[in-house]
Amino acid sequence: MNFKAEIDIMPLEAILDPQGKAVTQSMGNLGLNEISNVRIGKHITLKVEANDEAAAKEKVDTACKKLLANLIMESYTFTLTEV
Amino acid sequence: MNFKAEIDIMPLEAILDPQGKAVTQSMGNLGLNEISNVRIGKHITLKVEANDEAAAKEKVDTACKKLLANLIMESYTFTLTEV
Repeated sequence: MNFKAEIDIMPLEAILDPQGKAVTQSMGNLGLNEISNVRIGKHITLKVEANDEAAAKEKVDTACKKLLANLIMESYTFTLTEV
Repeated sequence: MNFKAEIDIMPLEAILDPQGKAVTQSMGNLGLNEISNVRIGKHITLKVEANDEAAAKEKVDTACKKLLANLIMESYTFTLTEV
């Protein structure tokens, strides 16, 4: 079975996000003062082959932990859909 | 009304994603050969104040077009939830 994973990796709430802060300020310069609290992370899509959804979930989890996310500074969530 | 927007910005399908390609290769080195087709984009969350959902949608759309996404190389999608 083939699955598509959609992974969101975001900086932890407790951690300053300077890129997001800079973008929040720029919003004001563009006349979009109603926009605040911008936080910027990564969105990753990938294909995974596995026998079932549970196995696919485990593989994506391993990929996030070992390679994609830095768990000291980031948290991740993901969804799987069969393709 | 306050809304939270969740924005995904991804490189267009037609465009090479060298970062994603490098990560796909690293998956093999980690023993995760079942993972392929990694594509890496941005996930952005922000708060927006507006009178109604339609107005909020327009503001987020403007922010994406003018600042967050490079429409020549990237496409964006977003969802709004009232908070």
